[in-house]
Amino acid sequence: MLPAFSGALFSASAFAQTTAAADPLPSWNDGAATQAILSFVAAVTGEGSPDFIPPAQRIATFDNDGTLWVEQPIPVQLTFALDRMKAMAPLHPEWKYTQPFKAALEGDMKTLAASGDHGLAELVMATHTGMTTEQFEKIVTDWLSKARDARWKRPYTDLAYQPMIELLVYLRANGFKTFIVSGGGIEFMRPWTERVYGVPPEQVIGSSIKTRFQMRDGRPVLFRLPELNFNDDKAGKPVGINQHIGRRPIAAFGNSDGDLEMLQWTTMAGGRRFGLIVHHTDAEREYAYDRNASSGRLDKALDAATSNKWTVVDMKNDWKRIFAFE
Amino acid sequence: MLPAFSGALFSASAFAQTTAAADPLPSWNDGAATQAILSFVAAVTGEGSPDFIPPAQRIATFDNDGTLWVEQPIPVQLTFALDRMKAMAPLHPEWKYTQPFKAALEGDMKTLAASGDHGLAELVMATHTGMTTEQFEKIVTDWLSKARDARWKRPYTDLAYQPMIELLVYLRANGFKTFIVSGGGIEFMRPWTERVYGVPPEQVIGSSIKTRFQMRDGRPVLFRLPELNFNDDKAGKPVGINQHIGRRPIAAFGNSDGDLEMLQWTTMAGGRRFGLIVHHTDAEREYAYDRNASSGRLDKALDAATSNKWTVVDMKNDWKRIFAFE
Repeated sequence: MLPAFSGALFSASAFAQTTAAADPLPSWNDGAATQAILSFVAAVTGEGSPDFIPPAQRIATFDNDGTLWVEQPIPVQLTFALDRMKAMAPLHPEWKYTQPFKAALEGDMKTLAASGDHGLAELVMATHTGMTTEQFEKIVTDWLSKARDARWKRPYTDLAYQPMIELLVYLRANGFKTFIVSGGGIEFMRPWTERVYGVPPEQVIGSSIKTRFQMRDGRPVLFRLPELNFNDDKAGKPVGINQHIGRRPIAAFGNSDGDLEMLQWTTMAGGRRFGLIVHHTDAEREYAYDRNASSGRLDKALDAATSNKWTVVDMKNDWKRIFAFE
Repeated sequence: MLPAFSGALFSASAFAQTTAAADPLPSWNDGAATQAILSFVAAVTGEGSPDFIPPAQRIATFDNDGTLWVEQPIPVQLTFALDRMKAMAPLHPEWKYTQPFKAALEGDMKTLAASGDHGLAELVMATHTGMTTEQFEKIVTDWLSKARDARWKRPYTDLAYQPMIELLVYLRANGFKTFIVSGGGIEFMRPWTERVYGVPPEQVIGSSIKTRFQMRDGRPVLFRLPELNFNDDKAGKPVGINQHIGRRPIAAFGNSDGDLEMLQWTTMAGGRRFGLIVHHTDAEREYAYDRNASSGRLDKALDAATSNKWTVVDMKNDWKRIFAFE
């Protein structure tokens, strides 16, 4: 039986490959969004196509929270900050009496939210700075290996959207260079983006705090300071893209008003361009939110999608499955 | 005669290819520096080598001024700033009476130098900001196409060091990703580094000014503001490297004290690493300068080279030729 069995295996494998080649986006339903993606890629990569764009210029930028992985009920990095604060609390008895730390420690999210951007910044500085870049990388990696999402009871990196991972792979197979452009922390993402999305550290752009070069015990380190360096959100995204990449993307993918300026910068430049918004419409399999969301609000960018002919993904109808583990 | 002539051509071409394969660094003399480079690359790329490093981690960073192209008698970007100031002077009659502009317009380099970093910053802000990123790129490209170096009467981009271009090509052929990490302006380099060095814009790191995203006449632009964003020199180089690349290089190449911290950050991290300093020792073919140079001073880094076992290139003896046009 062995030869026949091997033969069957070989055939199955060959069939799987043929299927994959025929359908590069197997987790996408065959709707308008899928067709728009395929049509754009064919137009800019086809030799002799009037819209042909050389590989070096095929830059595609992806938001992270809500575009590549889950951002509800609160962004993953905020959960990380809260967990880390609890771990650090014994060394900071004053946090029991000081806001926003008191609210954060007590799980009082309403008071924490009321502390606004300033309170959030205090929380981030207290938990994300005061160590070397190497130490911070280890802290993030250790946390991700142990932390579990409350709803799916899985590591957060399992909550990456399978259709978007397929899209990243498909674009790279067509000569695109894929970048992440996130409002989240650049050093919070870099330890795992290559493994999860196939995006190496040098293609990750995000918000950052200042670092300082120091010699410690005869070895050079970069020490993380409690001072904002760059806020890579909204109008900051085109600035960050230009700073890191030095070219204008030809395709951009987002899900919220924080991505509006990146989509404008990418698509309103003449030539064939592609903008896409992931619209969270699936409360059953993931979450449903848009104009009234406290994090990941999609309001102005949803209106702009119509006038700019950006593709809007209806998560419920356009995606066959959301996660690889389904 | 044609077939025989073609045959001879073919043979010559085949011979040239064989030679190139046998000697990847044809403009380098066979000395200790060349051997150190070849030995390092063999050690980190050889399958089964105890010092093997996977391709994704083969990051090499190069300073630009004085390492990849000529920086004497004054850095190219300073010549650009002075030329641009002269072109802008009719719109700024007040410059005739205000320092450092008066000195710059009169070619009084002594007074200009005495104005220090503050004066230089004023000069840069006046000439490098107040336009969109697209406009600035065009200004740089136009200037480079017309400007000629006073000594060789050639475009500045012809003054790239041929041995270093061969080194960039050689490293990339061995799976390295090559980055420029310069104290010079990031947007001053990006328009031409791909053509001259084979380094694309997204692999160029440099000093920068702040930009702001704006909609102008319905089109998105990034406007260049007269405010420093980042000084990518000395202790700033490891910071810039971490910000852009997010990995520690395994090889770094510089020529001055401005590169000391980059060399420390790269080589003092354990594992097989490589540091190299280009020592300008050839007044006849290029320039000779080190500890007392006003720009491109090499003093502390030259001392550090000994204790850290960095390779020091003696330009006069290690390089067969300096420029491609020789």
